[in-house]
Amino acid sequence: MGMDQATSVQTAYRGIAWVEGAFVPAEEAKVSVFDYGFSRSDVTYDVVHVWDGRFFRLEHHLDRFMASMAALRMSPGLDREGLRQVLLECVARSGLRDSFVAMLCTRGRPPQGSRDLRLCRNKLIVYAVPFVWVVPPERQASGISAIISSIPRIGAESVDPTVKNYHWLDLDRSLFEAYDRGADTAILLAPDGSVAEGPGFNVFIVRDGRVITPDAGALEGITRRTVLDICAERGIPTEVRPVSREELLDADEILTCTTAGGVMPVVRIEDRILGNGAPGPVSMALREFYWARHADPAETTPVPYPEDGTDPEAPELRAAGRAFIPSPR
Amino acid sequence: MGMDQATSVQTAYRGIAWVEGAFVPAEEAKVSVFDYGFSRSDVTYDVVHVWDGRFFRLEHHLDRFMASMAALRMSPGLDREGLRQVLLECVARSGLRDSFVAMLCTRGRPPQGSRDLRLCRNKLIVYAVPFVWVVPPERQASGISAIISSIPRIGAESVDPTVKNYHWLDLDRSLFEAYDRGADTAILLAPDGSVAEGPGFNVFIVRDGRVITPDAGALEGITRRTVLDICAERGIPTEVRPVSREELLDADEILTCTTAGGVMPVVRIEDRILGNGAPGPVSMALREFYWARHADPAETTPVPYPEDGTDPEAPELRAAGRAFIPSPR
Repeated sequence: MGMDQATSVQTAYRGIAWVEGAFVPAEEAKVSVFDYGFSRSDVTYDVVHVWDGRFFRLEHHLDRFMASMAALRMSPGLDREGLRQVLLECVARSGLRDSFVAMLCTRGRPPQGSRDLRLCRNKLIVYAVPFVWVVPPERQASGISAIISSIPRIGAESVDPTVKNYHWLDLDRSLFEAYDRGADTAILLAPDGSVAEGPGFNVFIVRDGRVITPDAGALEGITRRTVLDICAERGIPTEVRPVSREELLDADEILTCTTAGGVMPVVRIEDRILGNGAPGPVSMALREFYWARHADPAETTPVPYPEDGTDPEAPELRAAGRAFIPSPR
Repeated sequence: MGMDQATSVQTAYRGIAWVEGAFVPAEEAKVSVFDYGFSRSDVTYDVVHVWDGRFFRLEHHLDRFMASMAALRMSPGLDREGLRQVLLECVARSGLRDSFVAMLCTRGRPPQGSRDLRLCRNKLIVYAVPFVWVVPPERQASGISAIISSIPRIGAESVDPTVKNYHWLDLDRSLFEAYDRGADTAILLAPDGSVAEGPGFNVFIVRDGRVITPDAGALEGITRRTVLDICAERGIPTEVRPVSREELLDADEILTCTTAGGVMPVVRIEDRILGNGAPGPVSMALREFYWARHADPAETTPVPYPEDGTDPEAPELRAAGRAFIPSPR
């Protein structure tokens, strides 16, 4: 087949993980192929980020993760305070000042020979790796391109999108469709034809100065929540309601948002160029307000790094990403 | 929460796996949490079984697995003949005479920091463990109970059910619903309301002597195929077409089928008892014909066990399961 993966270099991942109650190098964070978290994707997770040495909206992520585990009838053997301590220590041990931090709970596996879900011991895993960008920062600043996928997002009746999950085959197939069509990413519609979400991000449109996002069929993203909070504080009118394919195609501006990238403007949807190919004013303002909040003590939790801790990430790598992010003021 | 899993015993799994090009104990078969096969459930697989030292319909499973990988644009770096050799050797090394044998291909992971699916190196894993029963044999012989799940199966437009996948959250939630209602398992309807499949099995109904199974919305199971083949050979009329919820509830007989259990009769659906609570005559005949085929050299491939190989499974365990399986004649 001669595909790219045959020649891609696979170096070790940097970062620290917490697995089976111990901190280990990220490279050693693995799950058994017999864990239903793998073999049935019976797992929930959350991702929080650390920016400039501070967790952003950690309690919001803990709220959601605890609710997700309860919805799947999982109890990980660690309470919220215990989990918070593991998260803080994991990042502290990693030394990372900007980090993508995941917490996940798998169903676990039953005794061999059984398939009874009630006999599985749920397993909690945490890891902190260098901050991951859904879209590279330099591409975000200039705006990204998206297609509307031909594949509908998995229906919310089958898999509740508000319980963050790894059911991504529809999203990954949509990404291949985007690659084939020369776009950065894809936006998926729900089975009813309304706008749902993309691979790892929520979607907003801007229309006549109003900021609009779907009310259903998507993860209730913390970054989405932050954008709505920013709008409320700044007096920008918002609407949370179904968004049609036609509205998406006809929007003044489109923006995507996620923990792994913040607010990312779209400048091309299908064959239509938005705003002469440059991110629109509302998108850029929201992006700036979003990053500015990262210096707010009320929204952030400092990582208790050891005194002699150093950031293992090469400074030039951090600088390269940061050059395109608005500085807090 | 005081759930059962807190106290369940987790002993090591027996069996042999092939991971990263080497044979290892099954217990060591793990995937990185960064492999998209885990963190996006971007993986396909197949399960074939070995019975009395012979693979059953191995080429059918290889056909489907190769097609599934192609559908997901995966190339595992091993051709069909190479894969067949790994499967044979894996079971031979395990010494197991009755085995559940899985082959799976994960998307792999991109270089750290990238999220480009095209940069992932796909990974092939094989394992052979003692034969697994979806329903214990003694329960099969007496017939099982099923509910109709309130949760619809993931739509075929979103995730193609004919590409065998681990998108099981809807199935696992349905199993919890079955547990809550005192049933063994659940049957899910497709989003359009027609019968789809259950957690790991296809569904047939028997009506006026005709054997009927859905034409869409489900895995095209090899055991399903075998049942259809048996019917064709024995002159039992079949229909492959949409099956309504009402037809399921009103069936003369219901049977489920899967590699991990063969043909398993249902004797209760929702609150309705079928056949006075005993498996019906068509179901029992199909079950007997199914197991009888396992002695047919045209359908089976012998495992090349070493001369001094011994089955590590305790003989009494094998005997316990076999007591309820019709013997080949």
